[in-house]
Amino acid sequence: MSIDATDFDEYLQFANELADAAAAAILPHFRAGGGAENKSAHGFDPVTAADRGAERAMRALIQARYPHHAILGEEEGGQAGTGLTWVLDPIDGTKAFLLGLPLWGTLIALNDGTRPVLGLMNQPFTRERFVGTAHCAWNGGHVLHTRACAQPADAHVMCTSPDIFDPAQRATFDAVAARARLLRYGGDCYAYCMLASGHVDAVIEAGLKPWDVQALVPIIEGAGGIVTTWDGGDVQHGGTVLACGDARLHAQLVTALGGS
Amino acid sequence: MSIDATDFDEYLQFANELADAAAAAILPHFRAGGGAENKSAHGFDPVTAADRGAERAMRALIQARYPHHAILGEEEGGQAGTGLTWVLDPIDGTKAFLLGLPLWGTLIALNDGTRPVLGLMNQPFTRERFVGTAHCAWNGGHVLHTRACAQPADAHVMCTSPDIFDPAQRATFDAVAARARLLRYGGDCYAYCMLASGHVDAVIEAGLKPWDVQALVPIIEGAGGIVTTWDGGDVQHGGTVLACGDARLHAQLVTALGGS
Repeated sequence: MSIDATDFDEYLQFANELADAAAAAILPHFRAGGGAENKSAHGFDPVTAADRGAERAMRALIQARYPHHAILGEEEGGQAGTGLTWVLDPIDGTKAFLLGLPLWGTLIALNDGTRPVLGLMNQPFTRERFVGTAHCAWNGGHVLHTRACAQPADAHVMCTSPDIFDPAQRATFDAVAARARLLRYGGDCYAYCMLASGHVDAVIEAGLKPWDVQALVPIIEGAGGIVTTWDGGDVQHGGTVLACGDARLHAQLVTALGGS
Repeated sequence: MSIDATDFDEYLQFANELADAAAAAILPHFRAGGGAENKSAHGFDPVTAADRGAERAMRALIQARYPHHAILGEEEGGQAGTGLTWVLDPIDGTKAFLLGLPLWGTLIALNDGTRPVLGLMNQPFTRERFVGTAHCAWNGGHVLHTRACAQPADAHVMCTSPDIFDPAQRATFDAVAARARLLRYGGDCYAYCMLASGHVDAVIEAGLKPWDVQALVPIIEGAGGIVTTWDGGDVQHGGTVLACGDARLHAQLVTALGGS
């Protein structure tokens, strides 16, 4: 559905209120020594009281303000609605959070039924808030622009961990990464925000969920970048993710990643 | 040489002045889009105007205040002196710095000729300053304590990058990391400070230089942790590094890493 400009401004203000509420629920737990539960039977997929408290706080605000909007959240799943969906990841980067690293973020997207039209990433410890729309992106008072980088040999590449890939994806990723000027692991949502800010040229990941990526799409695109699946398709449903600051680099990396 | 308490307090105050001077030289360059030169013929070992400016600023202060002290710095090498040596890394984590990530730090150690007796890590973007002595460590007003972790299966392990190891070290590291509860790449000096803060149980690295590690030794030891080479030896000259928050974990990891 299309959103008129007045409503859009209201949703943008509301997204900031959601971020404030999530931060208030999360910050008392950051570096406070609380433990985590493991959500996975096959590894370590932690969830903390901070994750759950922040998602509950955001859901309560949405249900009170926009009871007809749908919600899709990492911890509590989907809630049906009509037309617009708030897509929430209370803490993207729970492992970073547990390690005390300030690279996690609260991700908030508004999806109009066709795509995320508004995205916000909030990092309350560093007091950074990255916001994107179809037309622009900013961090506080600073407008974001991706930088030019035409080829892989000049690229600064990031990826949260080599462990996110299956063996075939890992082989493809390693071949691409070997051609890059600089490869750095670690980062979660923060890596995509540094791409939008013009410090990283490509982020290459796999296994992402819709709530891991939807908020980042408007931030990246609003800053002049491009984000798709590895084969160049629509990324909003998650899976493989290729974000680039420069469309020329993106075209070469889609070819190199071969749509695995 | 032994340092009396009055002199020690003066050196501690002076180390804080060095950190302030380095921060003033570095912060205008952080995320400012400046490039880097490559110091290596065999890879990408960047140095920036921020690295050079910060080391120059710190050296000038030391030479003015303590002209008989020795200096060992990453960018400008050694300067002879008598008795005490200031060991400086203006930006530990230059790659993180280039990527816009707030995980780099300025490292300042004072070595008494036998060991580093004072260590400081300053992260001016997040406004964090970790300081350690033989007896205690702190970050701002917060006293640091490592946490208990008796065995590898419970350990949260960090390492800046798998690329820092030679092939034999990599195989040894991978075998140890596979037993850990959580492995995270990325971090540089920040990872050691999170260990001192009780959020990380082990940091395992190789190929470090004296200026990469000396400032971290008093921070880790002052917080109750232990840091050595992989074979349990004196770490101040660099090489392999194994830092643990709990001596029981350290003993097991020394055995597992086998002194490679």
